Amino acid sequence: MADKKLVEAITSMEEDFAQWYTDVVKKAELIDYTTVKGCMVIRPAGYAIWELIQNDLDRRFKETGVQNVYLPMFIPESLLNKEKDHVEGFAPEVAWVTHGGLEPLQERLCVRPTSETLFCDYYKNVVHSYRDLPQVCNQWCSVVRWEKETRPFLRSREFLWQEGHTAHATAEEAEARTLQMLDVYSQFLEETLAIPAIKGRKTDKEKFAGAVATYTVEALMHDGKALQSGTSHNFGDGFARAFGVQYTDKDNTLKYVHQTSWGMTTRLIGAVIMVHGDDSGLKLPPAVAPVQVMIIPIQQKKEGVLDKAYEMRDRLAALGNVRVKVDDTDKSPGWKFSEQEMRGVPMRVEIGPMDMAAGKCLIVRRDTGEKIEISDADLENKVSELLVQIQKDMLETARAHRDSHTYVANDMDEFKKMFSEKSGFVKAMWCGNQDCEDRIKEELAVTSRCMPFEQEQISDVCVCCGKPAKHMVYWGRSY
Amino acid sequence: MADKKLVEAITSMEEDFAQWYTDVVKKAELIDYTTVKGCMVIRPAGYAIWELIQNDLDRRFKETGVQNVYLPMFIPESLLNKEKDHVEGFAPEVAWVTHGGLEPLQERLCVRPTSETLFCDYYKNVVHSYRDLPQVCNQWCSVVRWEKETRPFLRSREFLWQEGHTAHATAEEAEARTLQMLDVYSQFLEETLAIPAIKGRKTDKEKFAGAVATYTVEALMHDGKALQSGTSHNFGDGFARAFGVQYTDKDNTLKYVHQTSWGMTTRLIGAVIMVHGDDSGLKLPPAVAPVQVMIIPIQQKKEGVLDKAYEMRDRLAALGNVRVKVDDTDKSPGWKFSEQEMRGVPMRVEIGPMDMAAGKCLIVRRDTGEKIEISDADLENKVSELLVQIQKDMLETARAHRDSHTYVANDMDEFKKMFSEKSGFVKAMWCGNQDCEDRIKEELAVTSRCMPFEQEQISDVCVCCGKPAKHMVYWGRSY
Repeated sequence: MADKKLVEAITSMEEDFAQWYTDVVKKAELIDYTTVKGCMVIRPAGYAIWELIQNDLDRRFKETGVQNVYLPMFIPESLLNKEKDHVEGFAPEVAWVTHGGLEPLQERLCVRPTSETLFCDYYKNVVHSYRDLPQVCNQWCSVVRWEKETRPFLRSREFLWQEGHTAHATAEEAEARTLQMLDVYSQFLEETLAIPAIKGRKTDKEKFAGAVATYTVEALMHDGKALQSGTSHNFGDGFARAFGVQYTDKDNTLKYVHQTSWGMTTRLIGAVIMVHGDDSGLKLPPAVAPVQVMIIPIQQKKEGVLDKAYEMRDRLAALGNVRVKVDDTDKSPGWKFSEQEMRGVPMRVEIGPMDMAAGKCLIVRRDTGEKIEISDADLENKVSELLVQIQKDMLETARAHRDSHTYVANDMDEFKKMFSEKSGFVKAMWCGNQDCEDRIKEELAVTSRCMPFEQEQISDVCVCCGKPAKHMVYWGRSY
Repeated sequence: MADKKLVEAITSMEEDFAQWYTDVVKKAELIDYTTVKGCMVIRPAGYAIWELIQNDLDRRFKETGVQNVYLPMFIPESLLNKEKDHVEGFAPEVAWVTHGGLEPLQERLCVRPTSETLFCDYYKNVVHSYRDLPQVCNQWCSVVRWEKETRPFLRSREFLWQEGHTAHATAEEAEARTLQMLDVYSQFLEETLAIPAIKGRKTDKEKFAGAVATYTVEALMHDGKALQSGTSHNFGDGFARAFGVQYTDKDNTLKYVHQTSWGMTTRLIGAVIMVHGDDSGLKLPPAVAPVQVMIIPIQQKKEGVLDKAYEMRDRLAALGNVRVKVDDTDKSPGWKFSEQEMRGVPMRVEIGPMDMAAGKCLIVRRDTGEKIEISDADLENKVSELLVQIQKDMLETARAHRDSHTYVANDMDEFKKMFSEKSGFVKAMWCGNQDCEDRIKEELAVTSRCMPFEQEQISDVCVCCGKPAKHMVYWGRSY
């Protein structure tokens, strides 16, 4: 039996999802609050998840030819001001540096909220001819947005992310790269985080400041709210014109480059918590679990038990692709069970004197709670097999939850009823007019999440105005 | 023959070492200047070196039990002010954020120049009992110091680094960790960067603001100047007292923790350039070369040549630990030779129709220029063997250079003569009095680099005042 002490300390999801979330990030030791308002410490257990996310995404990026770089964290005000839509979108929420050392600065600098302007400045320097294209760069860094309300991982004044920025000779190539990276994101979400994603395009109202088109991967959290989990923007040549990023083409004429950018952030850790977690705490998909298998010795003071646990650990470690540990602290087994459940370790292996005598051990899956007795000789095979199975099952469980929380609305009454009674995605038709989008937001407090690539013809008319419909849209409350 | 065009564009080292350095970082495409004064772009070729440095160091850290975390980039002024020596050391060179969005801040925040204060604030929250110790954390991030004079990699207003911060129950444990990390640094310098290091302790004048003791690894650049390449600080319980970081010990009494910090930065890339480079450009030790072997096809338009080059690449790539590419651009072979030399690729393999007919190819070492004809069947063995050999030889070459540029001074006349005629390390005895250190700095424009662990009794008296000597010190001009 799992010890209840740790577990009782967290609020149940049904009772108060927001409080449950906060309890989990604290109790699983992912986050600590700081005296710096709106900024957080990402603790070892949280940062280790981020490192696994980084490694996986970075490998996927490099397979598509991405090169990493590092650009300054400061943007001079005059540089930020060069692209009109962009500065309007970001100026209200940036932090300003006004003094360097003891002197006031001649021009104030903002701490980057995103780096389109700096990448334009850089590409302007290094792109001269068509031979210098494409430029396909990415950086891993932190950015700052002066948010008023903050929540661990989901919204903080400083957060970690990657931002890819590319420059291309043609509009077609830029659009292809924008969509290629969206595919990388959705594959990463499904394969690595076990989160099914809706791929689609943002409406003009919801797109990025300065973009021609913004594409998004949207995920549904356990409480039925949506989380924008990654975005990919096509800028056309708008930034290139504002910053003068030109190249000499093969025909010897001067042309503007076409640009894209795309990003994912530490909010993905929040997504993992809110998609997979339960009232016992975190549930990590094996691919991003810093510890995948925790071996818990029972009656560990009895002769041979700890040695057996270490031997099992060494056998699993020898496989080369299993992250395994022994919890040999002097806490009780029950306490250890609760603790490892709270931390989301995908699988625990219990080994005690009776198991040893029988040549067996007990595996307990974190995702289903299933207990599986296996013979000692099967350890390596069974653990390897189960790690693959758990990863797969967690995706299917999340997909089933999303599908059962996706609804359809044909008119405003249905639409309102849906969001007053239920929580999830609502699919509804839209005429494409921003007035209707505004009205829906005002009356239902929901936003358009995206116009999915997989369109369905639910009806012929806009859910709001009744005029001919142009797009099927996913609507939802969002983080 | 290597094409001379690229090569002629860089200044010779003998003529003007500083200009040579700047030429190399630009021509090898490591760095680009930006409109953000004192800040630089680390370009793909430069950042790839940093990634290899990070991976190698991070693995070494983790082997000693280090866990990665991420703390905020902002430090409230009141927090920075808590430790007197520390704030005096850093306040004159920090950047201040005074506005968030459109509002002035109630308290200004500095952009971290280093994070001792934030780690104290964090440890104060998470350390309660002796069971919570030690805390052995590290973060990879960027820091800001408002330097007046900047140089690529060596000194810039923003730079990338790692900063380790630990908290321990006892003074002995803190001192042991400080020295352990210094060992990690010196092993990393020698084994990975092929740079021999002098390990020693800084004098009080040169130690870190707030430290009880600062240890350093000092390296000698090709021009005879010293570069502080990594430091490890023991803070005793000074910070703990200033910030109130206490724990309940086994005997139930409240005690202050003992802390350390240690860091290495992107200036290591500058060290690699200045230790190993020559008039043809960069020379990368294989361990940090993003491309270790460049295959250059000769007469590549002749049938079968490119296919042979790709086949050789695939055979080397199949070894799993060789980073290999084919330069199949339409530049001339001579141009490619120069370009790969400029970029420091450790080894090139030339393959043309005549080699193919003879079942041979030609390997050219970047470090020695040696040309080695081998049979095609030997490719994998010879390349693997040579990569190990080059790594080893580059260390020995650097060690020989350092040793032949290390001098001894017995009195001030000798000391002055040494630095007027030569450039390098000078070993001289010191009484331990800061007045002598100040006078030496004033008269010779050199600083004490460190009191090496390997002490030698050069004479009994201080080189400056003639009083009894306490320490043998390495002196030098430094970056």
